[in-house]
Amino acid sequence: MSIQRLPQHLIEQAVKQAFAEDLGDAGDITTAATIPGDAISTASIVARKPGVLAGMDIALDSFRAIDDELNVEQKKSDGHRLAPGDEILAISGRSRSILSAERVALNFLGHLSGIATATAALVDTVKGTDAKIVCTRKTTPGLRALEKYAVRCGGGHNHRFGLYDAVMIKDNHIAAVGGIESAVNAAREAVGHTIKIEVEIDGLDQLDAALGAGADIIMLDNMSTGDMNKAVEKTAGRAILEASGNVTVDTVRAIAETGVDIISSGWITHSAPSLDLGLDFA
Amino acid sequence: MSIQRLPQHLIEQAVKQAFAEDLGDAGDITTAATIPGDAISTASIVARKPGVLAGMDIALDSFRAIDDELNVEQKKSDGHRLAPGDEILAISGRSRSILSAERVALNFLGHLSGIATATAALVDTVKGTDAKIVCTRKTTPGLRALEKYAVRCGGGHNHRFGLYDAVMIKDNHIAAVGGIESAVNAAREAVGHTIKIEVEIDGLDQLDAALGAGADIIMLDNMSTGDMNKAVEKTAGRAILEASGNVTVDTVRAIAETGVDIISSGWITHSAPSLDLGLDFA
Amino acid sequence: MSIQRLPQHLIEQAVKQAFAEDLGDAGDITTAATIPGDAISTASIVARKPGVLAGMDIALDSFRAIDDELNVEQKKSDGHRLAPGDEILAISGRSRSILSAERVALNFLGHLSGIATATAALVDTVKGTDAKIVCTRKTTPGLRALEKYAVRCGGGHNHRFGLYDAVMIKDNHIAAVGGIESAVNAAREAVGHTIKIEVEIDGLDQLDAALGAGADIIMLDNMSTGDMNKAVEKTAGRAILEASGNVTVDTVRAIAETGVDIISSGWITHSAPSLDLGLDFA
Amino acid sequence: MSIQRLPQHLIEQAVKQAFAEDLGDAGDITTAATIPGDAISTASIVARKPGVLAGMDIALDSFRAIDDELNVEQKKSDGHRLAPGDEILAISGRSRSILSAERVALNFLGHLSGIATATAALVDTVKGTDAKIVCTRKTTPGLRALEKYAVRCGGGHNHRFGLYDAVMIKDNHIAAVGGIESAVNAAREAVGHTIKIEVEIDGLDQLDAALGAGADIIMLDNMSTGDMNKAVEKTAGRAILEASGNVTVDTVRAIAETGVDIISSGWITHSAPSLDLGLDFA
Amino acid sequence: MSIQRLPQHLIEQAVKQAFAEDLGDAGDITTAATIPGDAISTASIVARKPGVLAGMDIALDSFRAIDDELNVEQKKSDGHRLAPGDEILAISGRSRSILSAERVALNFLGHLSGIATATAALVDTVKGTDAKIVCTRKTTPGLRALEKYAVRCGGGHNHRFGLYDAVMIKDNHIAAVGGIESAVNAAREAVGHTIKIEVEIDGLDQLDAALGAGADIIMLDNMSTGDMNKAVEKTAGRAILEASGNVTVDTVRAIAETGVDIISSGWITHSAPSLDLGLDFA
Amino acid sequence: MSIQRLPQHLIEQAVKQAFAEDLGDAGDITTAATIPGDAISTASIVARKPGVLAGMDIALDSFRAIDDELNVEQKKSDGHRLAPGDEILAISGRSRSILSAERVALNFLGHLSGIATATAALVDTVKGTDAKIVCTRKTTPGLRALEKYAVRCGGGHNHRFGLYDAVMIKDNHIAAVGGIESAVNAAREAVGHTIKIEVEIDGLDQLDAALGAGADIIMLDNMSTGDMNKAVEKTAGRAILEASGNVTVDTVRAIAETGVDIISSGWITHSAPSLDLGLDFA
Repeated sequence: MSIQRLPQHLIEQAVKQAFAEDLGDAGDITTAATIPGDAISTASIVARKPGVLAGMDIALDSFRAIDDELNVEQKKSDGHRLAPGDEILAISGRSRSILSAERVALNFLGHLSGIATATAALVDTVKGTDAKIVCTRKTTPGLRALEKYAVRCGGGHNHRFGLYDAVMIKDNHIAAVGGIESAVNAAREAVGHTIKIEVEIDGLDQLDAALGAGADIIMLDNMSTGDMNKAVEKTAGRAILEASGNVTVDTVRAIAETGVDIISSGWITHSAPSLDLGLDFA
Repeated sequence: MSIQRLPQHLIEQAVKQAFAEDLGDAGDITTAATIPGDAISTASIVARKPGVLAGMDIALDSFRAIDDELNVEQKKSDGHRLAPGDEILAISGRSRSILSAERVALNFLGHLSGIATATAALVDTVKGTDAKIVCTRKTTPGLRALEKYAVRCGGGHNHRFGLYDAVMIKDNHIAAVGGIESAVNAAREAVGHTIKIEVEIDGLDQLDAALGAGADIIMLDNMSTGDMNKAVEKTAGRAILEASGNVTVDTVRAIAETGVDIISSGWITHSAPSLDLGLDFA
Repeated sequence: MSIQRLPQHLIEQAVKQAFAEDLGDAGDITTAATIPGDAISTASIVARKPGVLAGMDIALDSFRAIDDELNVEQKKSDGHRLAPGDEILAISGRSRSILSAERVALNFLGHLSGIATATAALVDTVKGTDAKIVCTRKTTPGLRALEKYAVRCGGGHNHRFGLYDAVMIKDNHIAAVGGIESAVNAAREAVGHTIKIEVEIDGLDQLDAALGAGADIIMLDNMSTGDMNKAVEKTAGRAILEASGNVTVDTVRAIAETGVDIISSGWITHSAPSLDLGLDFA
Repeated sequence: MSIQRLPQHLIEQAVKQAFAEDLGDAGDITTAATIPGDAISTASIVARKPGVLAGMDIALDSFRAIDDELNVEQKKSDGHRLAPGDEILAISGRSRSILSAERVALNFLGHLSGIATATAALVDTVKGTDAKIVCTRKTTPGLRALEKYAVRCGGGHNHRFGLYDAVMIKDNHIAAVGGIESAVNAAREAVGHTIKIEVEIDGLDQLDAALGAGADIIMLDNMSTGDMNKAVEKTAGRAILEASGNVTVDTVRAIAETGVDIISSGWITHSAPSLDLGLDFA
Repeated sequence: MSIQRLPQHLIEQAVKQAFAEDLGDAGDITTAATIPGDAISTASIVARKPGVLAGMDIALDSFRAIDDELNVEQKKSDGHRLAPGDEILAISGRSRSILSAERVALNFLGHLSGIATATAALVDTVKGTDAKIVCTRKTTPGLRALEKYAVRCGGGHNHRFGLYDAVMIKDNHIAAVGGIESAVNAAREAVGHTIKIEVEIDGLDQLDAALGAGADIIMLDNMSTGDMNKAVEKTAGRAILEASGNVTVDTVRAIAETGVDIISSGWITHSAPSLDLGLDFA
Repeated sequence: MSIQRLPQHLIEQAVKQAFAEDLGDAGDITTAATIPGDAISTASIVARKPGVLAGMDIALDSFRAIDDELNVEQKKSDGHRLAPGDEILAISGRSRSILSAERVALNFLGHLSGIATATAALVDTVKGTDAKIVCTRKTTPGLRALEKYAVRCGGGHNHRFGLYDAVMIKDNHIAAVGGIESAVNAAREAVGHTIKIEVEIDGLDQLDAALGAGADIIMLDNMSTGDMNKAVEKTAGRAILEASGNVTVDTVRAIAETGVDIISSGWITHSAPSLDLGLDFA
């Protein structure tokens, strides 16, 4: 199955904002001063390190936004496992346009491929289990939709996109209403029938209440794998179980093997290093 | 000297975009369903890991944007060295408002403090030398002004903000014009008198040409520390020397000790992990 | 339980757009020419017809946007059943400000209260059954979040807000994949674990497939109440059943009595007449 | 004579806003999961009920905004009298694009055609008289330009677009200045020579003052047809007479036959039900 | 009568755009580096040359936008005749804020007061005649509403604001329809009853046709004052007569004395020099 | 060397704003009423007065924004010296489109060519000296990037674009820090290494301090040409010298002959009259 694409208007908006920031009011003054307007070049975007590609539509739109007469050929698709030296994009046309668009395109590709790469590292590690790797709301402000897309490119899945599209009941919500059941009931009464309700618990002692209340998803927050095991057994498919907290490449396999359905990681979006890519002129 | 602040309109725009993304069209449906409108809470944002703080004005604006009747007290200033457990912000007021603003405020603080922390690691390592640590244009698209501010919070300095505010002549520009001197002259003729001209060279053999052309700044790209030493000696203050390439905490001291004026790092903006901060209710 | 409020940024954006449209580049030229700048008035917004109130936060923001020194007192809350003559809002302050803000405030209140009133008519009619009245995506373009809020004010609930927050599999989707089960599986594989999957069927013969595929919600499209009855019986709580098609005040009670969980109506958002309200000067 | 078109930038802005609202940050998740990227379909937008068409340029732009490679053929023009079953638009191309654009296109067409249809009902009823049917400022906030266009499609004319393009002196303005003549004079002195001045009167006793003051237009507010008759006679062409208040299909003919020039209706914009249209796949 | 003010949202938008342009991504780097954050100053905006003031609300909003704790006292009102040395605005508060806002405030005041001054020069020259001085659509792109306001400050009046709020039939329109009468009739049929129709003629031979067609306004384009005289006589009040073309301080009196009602000048908006104003620190 | 072009996104944004302002919500009502949709015309934009052309990309984009099927041929390039009668642009296509775009295109061309013409007058006058003519921050709010481009078209150069891209230390900054040297040092410490530092002095007595502090640029504010001469001699190339104050066509040659490097003029942007251009139909 193909990876679900980003809505085009989000791409255009992100690219527009990036160029406004990079070109300012005066534009690429170096290129304008040194490169003749009719100079033509050929260039390639190439992986310098191994990783997973994400952001091709944005990179394509970046070159197009600067000069829609550039000839840009996509050599790899998002989700592709890159080896160092792999050619990702071949560009030919006005040298000025290539130089002015280069950094914006690379910044998007590097950032999103970094997230895809970090996601894939977790996904690969849990291969063979039923656990899905998902992201969280711990994203770079203003770039959430793009980063959630990059998670998909890395083989991960998306958690809720914001406060608006799923209920997530945490300890403060529970405390305010007086208990898990009351909280779930209040939510079910308030929200539409298309919205799932997730309850975060931090101990096995809360599991029965969450199951009893009919939570669709139960998040096991910072629990031991031993407790996760017990939770899986007790739940017996009555709710989706999501493990959260201290998820790293080192710990994720053990977590997955407990049988939880979902493992969520903030790290893959808020701390993944950029993937090293470069643009080489022919 | 105090750190130069972000223009207020950039803060407001970033916060607005972040909440639009997190609240969507339906808002914080969990909090609305479970927390009474008149419930009051007290909470603190606290460091979980050591690091350098950045983003306080944005965090303050985040809480204010959701509810300008919240009482928000700043406990630490940007640039402060945080120890785990340090209280950064004390908030009291409507529980709903605190819960709805929490993630946006933390996402900004974590991202920017992560950059400040990474910057400070390099700055600390070169202490005692004359080298300044600076960022590059390898930033997260749309967040450059904020990230450059975070670099300042970490004790670093800013390189040019975009393609518009300084000339940076690289190999492609040189090739197009036919030589360093022609490129510098072309730039000097074209751009205003307030604009500095930087030339990137990748070998000592280009240094004389760059100096002869009167470049204000010469970037030594991926050169050995031995060659950097020679460049410093030969330049003798006639231009600002900037070292670039493979700058890590492990290598930066040796680079600084060559006597270069500036060391630029893309890593501090494009790959710094988020600093771990949390919001605790009292 | 209180009605879940609109995110403030949506209110401000809608009000800003409405005034830009009404004031244009020259402003309220009649009022400027005829009303002295220091004239003071007292006025009331009053119901002329019975209905259900919706849009008070927007009306308040409308007067505030024009003149934040106006004294505006809320007399009724959203969701209130209005009788003709009921005072909704009392305003005092600069006459110019009241006159210039009047139409924008009334247009919002009339439109949204019209939707709340239409919703309440259906909600009232099904009282005593377990059916919830919900809206659809058949909304006025650009105003969906506000109209969905108005539905909540009328005692209704919200269906998905857009194409992004729930899966709704219709005949074309089914045809493309080759069957209900394949479609549901494809969706479950692609979307996050917080997303519900709804399947639209137009005959009882599709019910088993939908149930077998594990659809969270099954929409019975344009089915007879007899068939709805059978669907309720056969489903026995394994999925949420939603009735759709030809929902009017005349038909809705019979539909509700079949035992379906949800009844969706496009009419309450796309065709509800405006509620008649007026602004009277004292 | 052809109907005056909407400025293109208003169309694009409205379409952009509508898709942002419908696609959100994740896009059409159902279609992405179930419809292959290379699937091709043919579909038609068809009238389900009789009415007058409005919004074709917006519908065309909606499909184009999602996928500019769709082949979209316009079968009917705005202003056309539709019979149930009439094909309005034929679309062929990527199935995904058609499905994702469908609802936005239909919401615009339904809303605007509803207004055109309501307008045409009044226009048809006064046929043979000299009265023109016009809209008011009682429009859906943010959609005024589009709705005024729909009125034109229905054979109606436009009243002023906002507070900025004509003077409309009502009782509060008159009271503030001390009389109709003073108010008209104040307005004439203040506003430019291209601006017409309208005075609203609610009794025949005010007509002389309005005529004497040289009002360009006089609105007879909620007056009996008997009084309208007398006003027409007395005015004898010295001002444009506009009837307002309680305008319905049942009353409008009698009003028109009094000889008034203009009959204005808020109902045609704020309360017209959506016209029932659907998209059928071939 | 007071001058009709600018809608507040236009002021805020213009000020926001101006500061975005002046502060960029880094802000006022000079002030941040040299002025302590707690330094306090007192300053005045003062006229350096005689002229007519325009733009006070915008200047006030400029200082407020930078720092809403500045104490800003308005010493003169828009429309005031300034003598060199006149104090216009007294500001006290943070030195940084005053310095950062200074140029934006002065640029608005200088530009708009320049227009007001140029307008007043024409208005003064025609004093005693019945002619009104009006502006045209020849304005600085993006600033039309502000510049039309400045014309009002100078004692002038506004012509139509754009292509949308009055009909202006020129030679090309006439040629396309086949004559003045056809053109006027076509316009009257198409546009709303609140819209005036102006016809531009360039010779006396067209006057009868324009009057016969019932044009509300007739523009005498580049006609001799002799011909204007004849036009005034022949028209005898049946239409508003507007003179246009070659309007300068030297020619305007003679034009006014022909008895035309309106004299329009593009020069007062597109070519008025900025009024010299300065900010002095105490 | 070719003139450095404006970033395309600034052009599009300016054109969009200009048409929004001119077309409003109703569009070009005159043209719609009188010109048949299929009428075709040919027209030329022609210089009526001598001057220097600026704004061609914006004019082209204006016609394209209204109708991308217009055939628009560029006859002259920006920077060209125009004689009266010179054809600048030849346009053919739909008459409606040409008429609706005419004023926006002319307003941009007239305003920017006026600035280019005023700049060229100064540039021509100093020909043979080494002085460059530069603009200031005294620009029309919101149009700075366009006006700075027009200065380049006139043969001038650009000073800093805003408060963000160069340090400019004036008397208030000096006073706050306690001296020129402290101010320069504070700035050098605070700002990045790519930023130049300019110091404004108003007497020869400050020159030594400015040179000693290592200012990159020294502005001689309102100094006599005698003092300028001495400053040039004393400076001997150690800093760029910029003359400012009372720069007119009459004074500029004498200033240039003192040997200063840069002469800055606010007049060329804030007070240059529009260049007279017109659109003639064939």
